[in-house]
Amino acid sequence: MAIEVEQKFRSLDSAELQRRLGGLATGPRETIVQVDRYFAHPNRDFALTDEALRLRRVGSHNYITYKGPKLDRTTKSRREIELCLPDDDAAANDSSELLVALGFSPVLEVRKRRTHFVVTWQGRPVEVALDEVEGLGSFVELEIIAEAPGLDAARAVLAGLATELGLDNSERRSYLELLIERQG
Amino acid sequence: MAIEVEQKFRSLDSAELQRRLGGLATGPRETIVQVDRYFAHPNRDFALTDEALRLRRVGSHNYITYKGPKLDRTTKSRREIELCLPDDDAAANDSSELLVALGFSPVLEVRKRRTHFVVTWQGRPVEVALDEVEGLGSFVELEIIAEAPGLDAARAVLAGLATELGLDNSERRSYLELLIERQG
Repeated sequence: MAIEVEQKFRSLDSAELQRRLGGLATGPRETIVQVDRYFAHPNRDFALTDEALRLRRVGSHNYITYKGPKLDRTTKSRREIELCLPDDDAAANDSSELLVALGFSPVLEVRKRRTHFVVTWQGRPVEVALDEVEGLGSFVELEIIAEAPGLDAARAVLAGLATELGLDNSERRSYLELLIERQG
Repeated sequence: MAIEVEQKFRSLDSAELQRRLGGLATGPRETIVQVDRYFAHPNRDFALTDEALRLRRVGSHNYITYKGPKLDRTTKSRREIELCLPDDDAAANDSSELLVALGFSPVLEVRKRRTHFVVTWQGRPVEVALDEVEGLGSFVELEIIAEAPGLDAARAVLAGLATELGLDNSERRSYLELLIERQG
């Protein structure tokens, strides 16, 4: 089972971070706008179970994603199941209607502009995302996909890269959690 | 909102029915094998609420379908929301895993060989499906898609066609319900 090993940091100096990433990145950077619509479960409190269900829109592309509880206390590693849906407005509406018909209810939308780099660090490809999140500010996420036996090695790669990039304001809360806290 | 107005009958003489349909059908008939995997809701008894959630496999094609409660007492008209999923084994597995992660549980599989005709009756296209259902036998379903204001007219078209085809063993229960009763 593939597990997304991920760490997120507040970005205090995005210009300096972009400079350092530019030196390490392999391949072109890409900027996209993502709109994530999160749903509450009909009888399970996702805030307590540390799960999430969302519909993601990127341009005309649609995805449905389930995220399981965090697997450890330092990174954001989770089980993730993502399915592509058809690429059109009808699929975006139908998937939302289907969830509502099943008793799920829309909670919040997270809108962000994401610039995506691939960095090779200690021989491993690491996905780096610089996020400007509407209402929250700038963050950076580091991510490796690993199988269960290689989790510790994957975490060590992320820790090394974070040090190299001068990142130390680790943030384990999701954008959804941060937005909910901000709304009070 | 498009509503599927549908009536189902037990087919007592499939050979005679095929002959009559052959005379009315426009376009080629098509035979496919459908495997429908039905799921129970985490906190709602679909048997009581008269809803259904299924994953359908037709060859390599995958769909997820929600069916709402029947809208009247004589036909099988329901609200239906169906989404295409990607065409591969991974999508079939992932969609099932996603539902299970959300607390849905697999109930039963309905396997059938369906031969599909399009019949024009009173100027309206009607979809006719002859089904050989594993463990249940032969059935025929008549279906028109209608908008809410045209439901009565759509029902009248189906009733006329049923008479023409000599169908009078109406069956309102779903294949899932019939299979559960048979097991019970």
